[in-house]
Amino acid sequence: MTQFKEIWEDVLSQPKVSKQEFKEAEPEIRRELVELQQELRNSKVSVMMVFAGVDGAGKHEMVNTLNSWMDPRGIITHAYAAEDLEATQHSPFWKYWRDIPAIGQLGLFLSAWYSKPLLGRVHRRMSEKDFKEHLKEISEFERTMTDNGILVVKVWMHMDKKAQLKRLNELSSKPDTEWEIKPGAWENWGMYDRFIEASTKIIRASDKAGIPWLLVNGKHRYARQLTVARALRDAMRHRLQNPPVDNSLTPTEWDKKMSPTRGSLRKMDLTKSLEKSEYKTKLKALRVRLYQLQHKAQLAGLSTVLVFEGQDAAGKGGAIRRLVQGLDAQQYQVVPIAAPTKAELAHHYLWRFWQHLPRKGRVTIFDRSWYGRVLVERVEGFATDAEWQRAYQEINEFEQQLINSNYVVCKFWIQIDKEMQLARFEERQNTPYKEWKITDEDWRNREKWDVYDVAVDDMISLTHHKQAPWVLVEGNDKSWSRIKVLETVCQQLEKALKTHT
Amino acid sequence: MTQFKEIWEDVLSQPKVSKQEFKEAEPEIRRELVELQQELRNSKVSVMMVFAGVDGAGKHEMVNTLNSWMDPRGIITHAYAAEDLEATQHSPFWKYWRDIPAIGQLGLFLSAWYSKPLLGRVHRRMSEKDFKEHLKEISEFERTMTDNGILVVKVWMHMDKKAQLKRLNELSSKPDTEWEIKPGAWENWGMYDRFIEASTKIIRASDKAGIPWLLVNGKHRYARQLTVARALRDAMRHRLQNPPVDNSLTPTEWDKKMSPTRGSLRKMDLTKSLEKSEYKTKLKALRVRLYQLQHKAQLAGLSTVLVFEGQDAAGKGGAIRRLVQGLDAQQYQVVPIAAPTKAELAHHYLWRFWQHLPRKGRVTIFDRSWYGRVLVERVEGFATDAEWQRAYQEINEFEQQLINSNYVVCKFWIQIDKEMQLARFEERQNTPYKEWKITDEDWRNREKWDVYDVAVDDMISLTHHKQAPWVLVEGNDKSWSRIKVLETVCQQLEKALKTHT
Repeated sequence: MTQFKEIWEDVLSQPKVSKQEFKEAEPEIRRELVELQQELRNSKVSVMMVFAGVDGAGKHEMVNTLNSWMDPRGIITHAYAAEDLEATQHSPFWKYWRDIPAIGQLGLFLSAWYSKPLLGRVHRRMSEKDFKEHLKEISEFERTMTDNGILVVKVWMHMDKKAQLKRLNELSSKPDTEWEIKPGAWENWGMYDRFIEASTKIIRASDKAGIPWLLVNGKHRYARQLTVARALRDAMRHRLQNPPVDNSLTPTEWDKKMSPTRGSLRKMDLTKSLEKSEYKTKLKALRVRLYQLQHKAQLAGLSTVLVFEGQDAAGKGGAIRRLVQGLDAQQYQVVPIAAPTKAELAHHYLWRFWQHLPRKGRVTIFDRSWYGRVLVERVEGFATDAEWQRAYQEINEFEQQLINSNYVVCKFWIQIDKEMQLARFEERQNTPYKEWKITDEDWRNREKWDVYDVAVDDMISLTHHKQAPWVLVEGNDKSWSRIKVLETVCQQLEKALKTHT
Repeated sequence: MTQFKEIWEDVLSQPKVSKQEFKEAEPEIRRELVELQQELRNSKVSVMMVFAGVDGAGKHEMVNTLNSWMDPRGIITHAYAAEDLEATQHSPFWKYWRDIPAIGQLGLFLSAWYSKPLLGRVHRRMSEKDFKEHLKEISEFERTMTDNGILVVKVWMHMDKKAQLKRLNELSSKPDTEWEIKPGAWENWGMYDRFIEASTKIIRASDKAGIPWLLVNGKHRYARQLTVARALRDAMRHRLQNPPVDNSLTPTEWDKKMSPTRGSLRKMDLTKSLEKSEYKTKLKALRVRLYQLQHKAQLAGLSTVLVFEGQDAAGKGGAIRRLVQGLDAQQYQVVPIAAPTKAELAHHYLWRFWQHLPRKGRVTIFDRSWYGRVLVERVEGFATDAEWQRAYQEINEFEQQLINSNYVVCKFWIQIDKEMQLARFEERQNTPYKEWKITDEDWRNREKWDVYDVAVDDMISLTHHKQAPWVLVEGNDKSWSRIKVLETVCQQLEKALKTHT
């Protein structure tokens, strides 16, 4: 145990605060917090404050204190319990993504993302390897939050073994507090050494620049309240005064880095096509195959995420409709992605996609997707250079989380050439019931064909992975592209079912 | 069976449409639908289209057709399956409320609210009485939608017993369609007569003015597609051209109707108070009692909804904090209600409250609530006369649904007098960390004290019920009001636990 001691000794030496001192300090810190909350409300920042640590060290009390000191209309408290059945149908971080606060808001998180590795390790339900893997995912999650303007404040409330015993005894001896002792609290206390060992590893692995842990001595009530409140004040003040550092590459630097990998689109053979009769035969057979595979996937609890991207008029919608016609409506959801709503803009850009992820055994088909960040948002300047440049990594980590939860992930880029697009645009314009499909924006996008080409090339080389592949689909002939999509989905499902069962 | 025949004979005599006729009609109806969708997008209307009827009669196909004919970005398809675990933790209509489309949107609903009574009655899982009760709830649900500007289009796809047999045989003989035959389809066919009997009752009970059923002959593919598409066109056109009829009472008529019931607030004895020492003793004891009761309620799967209303500075926040300090954070959620967001404004006004209802065994505390419709929205004119006047019934029906699902519902009105409000406003203004609590709006509201009084009186007399009572809390003395709230919650939980177990 000695090797962990040094971390905790400092914490335990944090001094007591007298009632008198507390009473004197309280009005000032409350005023400061309320003012900062007002500033927060008018900013682009949101705050996620996560509490972890020893049972009985005052986590719940602190949440109540902050709720009474600040305006509760700007605070959302999330305390996670096993009864959240919907969450059991999704990957581990789904519920935290669902609950990230909108800009201007403060989210307080109890029994949140540190509970699983901590208790998992204490009770040896989690191997050392899975523990490390999970901590890595936590770091990615927190970094993704921080990079996108969210302030993450982490508070660890500590007590030594003797003090915890005393607290547990105190709490359980009074009828109005005994409920605070959760089932398992005594058992956890009995494993105090393991608890500290796991805590130390967690803190070492997750104490990062910009996302440090605040370690608090939970022994003294007044002291711990002031310490936490002041840390929140300092973190908010610092974040509101210091916008994140822009460490993006210049366009020239980016081009230099990426240009050797470009050109995959130009290698595509867009003359590929299929006879009408062959198309019809194949389509029928593939629908049967797909239905049967999806039925097996459902039984196996295997979820599928399909992404469709492509130029305007490339045939995304048509390919998706051919795909779903063979599926049971209860099994899939098609999510067409348009410009973000106000509520979506007030959240992390990946937030809205997390909302639509399929639960276990189901399929979600995205007609356009999170790749908008590195396509339209990059080209049109809706995202800053820093934002779209770091998005590739964020997207890779996002998809990796799905893969870790046994999702089938497959991404289709449907490519047509400029002549074909023009022909289809004109056909749309000349067909009364298709005219709505063509807008001025489509014509404007067409003028930026080459710029989009570069963005697509970069996207494919930076986010193509064996388990979340980009499938390049030759789209000039619709029969060809539809069959290729269907065949690929079947193959991916077959492969996944083989590995999974 | 003869007594039901007449309804269905007309349906079955709907004629066939040739391929040629269909091809000629298709461009026109597509263009019309697309244009209406565009109009819808710029309106305050949304559309809920629900499909029901005989298996194999083309419901799913019709959903695909509409998705391919119209802009899928304006359509959301919901097909309900038993795997929606979160929905099992809520009252029956929760999932439909969750999914009502935003203004401008078209929602397509499969296996939705008519499935439960239909299959429940066919398989005799539901008594005649529950069946009728459920149909009543459906009618209330649809009327609430319609009254609030949502167009509800109901399509029943029918076939006779022989035609259904033929269709089932056809579908199951081809590998690319056999999956469409759900487990239970043959069994349902075997109970065709019961199915028609239940269907007839459903249609008779739910075919209302403004929300009629479209009965469609599902035998002929081209005919059924055109019939449904044209019915949707006609309904949308009619709704977009005809705003709902305003049948509100004039202020004089309303006053005449309500004035005899007013005055409950003036009868309150606001001098009621509690000694500090008694307060402390009671508070401690009540917290223990509340915690234990909530623990039992959780085990019993009993959910609780608490509503707090009251004048500005009446002490809602303080009462809520005293209440939750004795509860486990995983067991409750406090939802402070501020002005609606843009997304909330784009939905039915009750939509945002449904989102926050507790799952089984949990507690949600609303700091202000849906009663805003008949308080601030009435007084400030944010709701039209027709809107706030019908809101009482909508709210009663909403709360009745919760009660039917064994929720504990309790509503607190905390009342202070004008002098006390002034004293508290001034105290807030003179305390730096409380200054944020007082705004110009609070002072403006204060000027309308008497108008609010009338609205509160009306609210209490129109929405007070034994199972969802309004508890009038004397708020001049905070100790008194906090204890009264805690005591009432304990009593309500005790009563519910007694009835429930």
